[in-house]
Amino acid sequence: MATFTIELSARWGDLDAFNHVSNVTFLRYLEECRARWMDSVPSHWQDGESGPVVANININYRAPVLWPARLTVSLKPLSPGRSSIKIEHEIRSVPRKEGEPGTLHADATVTLVWIEKKSGESVPLPISIRQLAE
Amino acid sequence: MATFTIELSARWGDLDAFNHVSNVTFLRYLEECRARWMDSVPSHWQDGESGPVVANININYRAPVLWPARLTVSLKPLSPGRSSIKIEHEIRSVPRKEGEPGTLHADATVTLVWIEKKSGESVPLPISIRQLAE
Amino acid sequence: MATFTIELSARWGDLDAFNHVSNVTFLRYLEECRARWMDSVPSHWQDGESGPVVANININYRAPVLWPARLTVSLKPLSPGRSSIKIEHEIRSVPRKEGEPGTLHADATVTLVWIEKKSGESVPLPISIRQLAE
Amino acid sequence: MATFTIELSARWGDLDAFNHVSNVTFLRYLEECRARWMDSVPSHWQDGESGPVVANININYRAPVLWPARLTVSLKPLSPGRSSIKIEHEIRSVPRKEGEPGTLHADATVTLVWIEKKSGESVPLPISIRQLAE
Repeated sequence: MATFTIELSARWGDLDAFNHVSNVTFLRYLEECRARWMDSVPSHWQDGESGPVVANININYRAPVLWPARLTVSLKPLSPGRSSIKIEHEIRSVPRKEGEPGTLHADATVTLVWIEKKSGESVPLPISIRQLAE
Repeated sequence: MATFTIELSARWGDLDAFNHVSNVTFLRYLEECRARWMDSVPSHWQDGESGPVVANININYRAPVLWPARLTVSLKPLSPGRSSIKIEHEIRSVPRKEGEPGTLHADATVTLVWIEKKSGESVPLPISIRQLAE
Repeated sequence: MATFTIELSARWGDLDAFNHVSNVTFLRYLEECRARWMDSVPSHWQDGESGPVVANININYRAPVLWPARLTVSLKPLSPGRSSIKIEHEIRSVPRKEGEPGTLHADATVTLVWIEKKSGESVPLPISIRQLAE
Repeated sequence: MATFTIELSARWGDLDAFNHVSNVTFLRYLEECRARWMDSVPSHWQDGESGPVVANININYRAPVLWPARLTVSLKPLSPGRSSIKIEHEIRSVPRKEGEPGTLHADATVTLVWIEKKSGESVPLPISIRQLAE
């Protein structure tokens, strides 16, 4: 199963008063990666009657991000259940030389659950998402 | 060991495109609780040569937060180590009747590590923080 | 025509790397004031087929906001046109003594236009909003 | 005097509950442009004893930004005074064909004042900034 990766730039406004990218904003980076991933498959995540919600995030902060910074954010879906899926994320610096791994800033596991938006009840995973994770 | 609790209001701008408070913003609420807690004890967390950084957050999302909403955010420090401490958080709705528990929106465990800011090396917990957690 | 005022607290996460509340976040405070105001009158601003969009903001930054801070944010609607209205805002510190004015942190004029959401075309102001401004 | 331009991507989390990039976040895009500009000249804006603060922003919102979106944010410094400078900004979509102008989403004029950080008193513009604006 393939890893999905995006690149993004830290914004100066992502810094907090300690002059590091806020730990809160790391979740924004993970969210952007998932949003672009779901946009890249026929998952109707934005406009359907059902869609994903975050049930759990477990994130390890490994190294601070300063500004300016160019980052890669990756995800790897795994462990699909009936209506939930786990996603493994990494946030790394864009490496100076191609082929080298960049500094690891954070890794995280995120559990998503697909729900019917009005009732809040869980529904089966979209087939497109299940296929990506198997 | 006492629980430390603050009240805060969701802002309309905390909503994301799904019309719920963003899962990212939940961490902002936890951060505000910790910031006010550290401000309430002599921990020199803002201006000293050492201070806390977040090493891990494990958060369970239990129920969405709509707008407007008045919330309580609590913390309970536990498990102090040499330079780290675990904090248990809860985000709840302010209950309609005094004495009732409000709806649980999220619970989380956050691991903080005190570091020397320039070198990034871990240092012993401030005594004030250690005492609160014992 | 009455002034509408809310109180809110700055969050530690509203600070930027210069240790002041970000100039960007001042607009969040103004938005919160308008959202609560529109929620206080029958304006169907959130769920109707038409609603307000911001056409212009002109804001003067007068004094920095540190953390912690308790603030008042006020608005005064004026100059209703066919589909637009101007709103005057102020952000002040909650005064130490009742009756005293708090420090002025910012004042702003915001122009809102009511539009039909799908087409983007302007529509007449809701009667409730027009009445408040006259 | 040359225009300084950056490219950036809207984040899904920049959307508000109306499914458009928040009017607040437009200021984040302008800020990022100024931060990279000041980083590109010897202006010591981040670490010196003096630095710029925003005194006024006047922004016109011209067209909504959806997600995903690739944007250009430009600035043109003008009207240097003793300690202040005006900056003209534009936010545009990256054009589909090279040489075409992208859709104009917003234009703004921002007034910056250089101050001594401790006292808050205005100081002369850095020479590097003055030269860029003349």
